[in-house]
Amino acid sequence: MAGQERLVVCTTCRREGWLPDELRDGARLSAALTQRGVAHDIQECFSACSNSCVVTLRGPGRWTYVQGGLDPDHDLEEVIAFARAYQASADGIVPWRERPEVIRKNTIARIPPLED
Amino acid sequence: MAGQERLVVCTTCRREGWLPDELRDGARLSAALTQRGVAHDIQECFSACSNSCVVTLRGPGRWTYVQGGLDPDHDLEEVIAFARAYQASADGIVPWRERPEVIRKNTIARIPPLED
Repeated sequence: MAGQERLVVCTTCRREGWLPDELRDGARLSAALTQRGVAHDIQECFSACSNSCVVTLRGPGRWTYVQGGLDPDHDLEEVIAFARAYQASADGIVPWRERPEVIRKNTIARIPPLED
Repeated sequence: MAGQERLVVCTTCRREGWLPDELRDGARLSAALTQRGVAHDIQECFSACSNSCVVTLRGPGRWTYVQGGLDPDHDLEEVIAFARAYQASADGIVPWRERPEVIRKNTIARIPPLED
């Protein structure tokens, strides 16, 4: 994401069935986003492990969204689509109809913007 | 909370067993905090309903914590203690031993500070 809006990916997230010898699912999601040229920050643990994989979208003056239940093998396009819609929005609120289903169904929390 | 750190309480939260004729549990938590003189903001829905009651602690340059599983009848002192410890901390991270048990066990998400 090019502006002050930031997509942040948990790189320590591991989903059920993850094998210890494998790269963590969250790290794979981050690598896949990098490969697609999608700028993002990384974070070791959002303390939302039971809902992994987890990403956060936030920015100054915007609502913050914490999204979980993401599968790096299946939900990459949805994460990218939501991140772009978030960036295009005025305040971080993406209209419901523009939210991919995996996003609609797995909002862990939304947090209002900080007041000045 | 007196500084730029803010405690935000969801006033639409309702726990299992809540009765439709009653004030919502989150609104009761907010009222109880007001009665104790604890400044806070209110928010209609953090989209974390399955973990109600929910509060958020955040501030400029600080980690944001989303905390759930709060019972307005039993956890008021714990919410106040955690809010004060958060305010006293440098960056929003309260040492583990200073976190009340209901806070330790019910962190929905933590989000790193926005970078400048």
